[in-house]
Amino acid sequence: MDVQEDETLATGYKLKLNSYDLGVDFELADAIRRIRFEHPEVRAVVVTSLKPRIFCAGANIYMLGTSSHAFKVNFCKFTNETRCAIEDDSRHSGRRYIAALNGTASGGGYELAIACDEIYLVDDGNSAVSLPEVPLLGVLPGTGGLTRLVDKRKIRRDRADVFSTLAEGLKGKRAKEWGLIDDTFPTSKFHQAVAERVTHAVSLRDAAVEPTLNTNDTSQADSVRYGIKLNPVEYADGPDSRKYRYVSLQLHREQRYADLTLSGPNDDPPNDADTIQDLGDNFWPLRAFREFDDALLHLRVNEPEIGLVCLRTKGDIDKVLAVDQTFARNRDHWLVREIILQMARVLRRLDLTAKSFFAIVEPGSCFAGSLLELELSADRIYMLNHADETVEIATSELNAGALPMSNGITRLQSRFLSEPERVAAVLSHAGRFDTAAADEAGLVTFAPDDLDWDDELRLAIEERTSLSPDALTGMEASLRFAGPETMDTKIYGRLTAWQNWIFQRPNAVGPQGALTNYGKPAQAQFDYKRT
Amino acid sequence: MDVQEDETLATGYKLKLNSYDLGVDFELADAIRRIRFEHPEVRAVVVTSLKPRIFCAGANIYMLGTSSHAFKVNFCKFTNETRCAIEDDSRHSGRRYIAALNGTASGGGYELAIACDEIYLVDDGNSAVSLPEVPLLGVLPGTGGLTRLVDKRKIRRDRADVFSTLAEGLKGKRAKEWGLIDDTFPTSKFHQAVAERVTHAVSLRDAAVEPTLNTNDTSQADSVRYGIKLNPVEYADGPDSRKYRYVSLQLHREQRYADLTLSGPNDDPPNDADTIQDLGDNFWPLRAFREFDDALLHLRVNEPEIGLVCLRTKGDIDKVLAVDQTFARNRDHWLVREIILQMARVLRRLDLTAKSFFAIVEPGSCFAGSLLELELSADRIYMLNHADETVEIATSELNAGALPMSNGITRLQSRFLSEPERVAAVLSHAGRFDTAAADEAGLVTFAPDDLDWDDELRLAIEERTSLSPDALTGMEASLRFAGPETMDTKIYGRLTAWQNWIFQRPNAVGPQGALTNYGKPAQAQFDYKRT
Repeated sequence: MDVQEDETLATGYKLKLNSYDLGVDFELADAIRRIRFEHPEVRAVVVTSLKPRIFCAGANIYMLGTSSHAFKVNFCKFTNETRCAIEDDSRHSGRRYIAALNGTASGGGYELAIACDEIYLVDDGNSAVSLPEVPLLGVLPGTGGLTRLVDKRKIRRDRADVFSTLAEGLKGKRAKEWGLIDDTFPTSKFHQAVAERVTHAVSLRDAAVEPTLNTNDTSQADSVRYGIKLNPVEYADGPDSRKYRYVSLQLHREQRYADLTLSGPNDDPPNDADTIQDLGDNFWPLRAFREFDDALLHLRVNEPEIGLVCLRTKGDIDKVLAVDQTFARNRDHWLVREIILQMARVLRRLDLTAKSFFAIVEPGSCFAGSLLELELSADRIYMLNHADETVEIATSELNAGALPMSNGITRLQSRFLSEPERVAAVLSHAGRFDTAAADEAGLVTFAPDDLDWDDELRLAIEERTSLSPDALTGMEASLRFAGPETMDTKIYGRLTAWQNWIFQRPNAVGPQGALTNYGKPAQAQFDYKRT
Repeated sequence: MDVQEDETLATGYKLKLNSYDLGVDFELADAIRRIRFEHPEVRAVVVTSLKPRIFCAGANIYMLGTSSHAFKVNFCKFTNETRCAIEDDSRHSGRRYIAALNGTASGGGYELAIACDEIYLVDDGNSAVSLPEVPLLGVLPGTGGLTRLVDKRKIRRDRADVFSTLAEGLKGKRAKEWGLIDDTFPTSKFHQAVAERVTHAVSLRDAAVEPTLNTNDTSQADSVRYGIKLNPVEYADGPDSRKYRYVSLQLHREQRYADLTLSGPNDDPPNDADTIQDLGDNFWPLRAFREFDDALLHLRVNEPEIGLVCLRTKGDIDKVLAVDQTFARNRDHWLVREIILQMARVLRRLDLTAKSFFAIVEPGSCFAGSLLELELSADRIYMLNHADETVEIATSELNAGALPMSNGITRLQSRFLSEPERVAAVLSHAGRFDTAAADEAGLVTFAPDDLDWDDELRLAIEERTSLSPDALTGMEASLRFAGPETMDTKIYGRLTAWQNWIFQRPNAVGPQGALTNYGKPAQAQFDYKRT
């Protein structure tokens, strides 16, 4: 295991990274998720390494140099999602992330550090922070590195320019002066200084976070002390399918599309937080969204030829809405908060997935409340208009802000930028929407009747999967995130696009490219034309 | 000439496009500039075509299919700068742009339309608006098309998705319902309806625009009636140089860098607006910035191997600042306003140019006021620290907001995001900054002394031009625009990046690519892997 965990201090937690490479990104994502659910009492997380010079891009370079273009881009996106999860945890759950750089932090290692709240670098005469991607590899520190440099740490742009072209990076004094780290300590005092920072962070546990822990309620304070266990996500793989308990993925390889179906809860939801805590990771929304997350990553990484995903739901709308009501009643409970935050992250992963999504609303669907967000995240929504059968959708409080997109606003707000009054109208609508009402409210793209339904869907799928996959990726990335921009949308919509370009340029990956030739005696040969 | 101008109505102006192809973009940019300077009395501009089916991407496709990757990307950037100039004119000079689509507006033609304030489409049973780039060509309507769709016209994202994948586009009724056009009129009533819109726009001439025309001053109202003549920019080309009156470009081809020098005014500036009007396009800032603009475009399009531009200035700081003072005293005069807006657009073109820029501040430099913006737009600033010689820079009122970047804030604000109080400190600094003061104020990247100066510059130039040009383009695009995002930065920093990627993918430009095969009997063959 690449991530070694080591509980230290009363409520601090140490994540020790054994090497900063591909594997560690997956393990890191897992470790952060487990801290949130299994150790809710932890108020500070120290990100550090087992041995000096560990935060280094060496393994990454090897991985990037040998993997496919698609894998490189997927990797960068996933890695940045993990960094956003760190920032999400810091912002919403109030945990403080402290990067304790006990050696050189280079490339992805430093990018990980700037996802943390504080950065401390050992002053041993050698250790430095650096982003050597441009000078050494001819690619970008593009999993958020450049954007976090100027937008999060607000480094002066000319200094960011110098730093990002300096292979050896900057050591303690200059790095601190330029704002790249928060402080530097000699080797002999490093451990103590970091421990003091942890103590300080822990002492802030009662400080305001959004939303705050309800610390007046002692029963909750007790429950906080005992997290729930997150068991591995289970599934059964078939040749063209993957089945989880609540999620089912069916691949139609010939036609290059998939059906991804999320089932609602079978039982009535627990009424109170204690029962939720007892259910643990078997509680429907937590389990279902973890499964859905896994299916998305599987589609991204292992099924590159699937261009279109039809999002479907199956179940009882009332039971889905009952869960949202339980959430609303217990929103201050730490576990409810973590589950909602987790659902929000999974939905953002959906928004950011480079596949087309059509939501298919039919009899038996349960696109309601939290699951309505699946519909709203789709590029198009097809809803059957049937004279005899019930086809309905519904909203809940969760559609009003608990599950924001990367642009900081809700999917309803993003949808109705030109008519913001429609958001309130949809949210205050009494009862469910049938197809006519949903269409009238602006919640449907097409509402074919039962005579046309099959043909229209078939044609839409055929047409979509016939288009250039590259053009669709660029188009969807541009249309999905209208409205405000945040650091997150900047990184994904902008920096990822540059990655997509640069990662396949001959100057990086050609026979004479910098990434190809890194570590070899031959120097990179560039075509110097600039665009 | 592709753009035919036809003065109609009292203060309306008709731009008739003969064909929407590459040439027209350059002519269109020129025509808009000339309306602003030569016909300041015009309050409404009708963008229309000489014959139906003219706003069509046919010529563009041919151009895109046959030109180099670099040319494609440069073309898209330039074209979008022209569209931003339309929007700039509408916002700041109060002219209303009315797209009168008397035939199908397809691709670039519709992208031009959505840069206008209002769009009217003839309802003749055939005419439509469309963005067929994705379905027909496997590329993006990426010179702002997608972003303006959802961010400017705020089209619902699923409708934007449908529209952008529908080769034949949408006709009047549906186009209006979806917000793609403002209205549609039958052929027999089209001319009259557009004329009424023009009359309405002209009647708004006294309405508030930012900044407003000072219509109380009748002498100004008179001067408004007579614009100044914009003569073509003149220069002499040598094998490695281009010399204008105030701008000089010297290419060092072997070392892949250029010196671009802007000279300050030779004479004391005019004190009043009438004298400025008499000087016309010979007035120093107008002429110097038009020359500078031309040099930038020349570098972009004709000198792709020049990777680094050293920005230099030469002249008398007092004379440069005197011009800024004249501007400040006459800021409400239409011509002063237009000149400042023109300078701002040229500086934004500089920010958006895919070359590295180093500002070189030496004895004899005049980086002051408006010219300080050249320094602040550079990726790095080198300022000589000399014990005996005078090396100085200075601010003026123009650094406080008159020349904003594409992100809507000033270059000083972008520079000091982490220490906003420095902006006020710099602007209120008494007198000039010598090298030590400039360094202290945060206005310098490196300040070598005279012993190190030559070596340090030589090394910096050598190092910069040795790096991967692709990585530098992505890096600079990411670091230059920290802080707020606007529709403009979204288009340039994000959509341009997708263009860079998609325009060179085999799915577009390979032997079986959609762009390559458009109009040929062979259908495009795609590699369907999505990333």
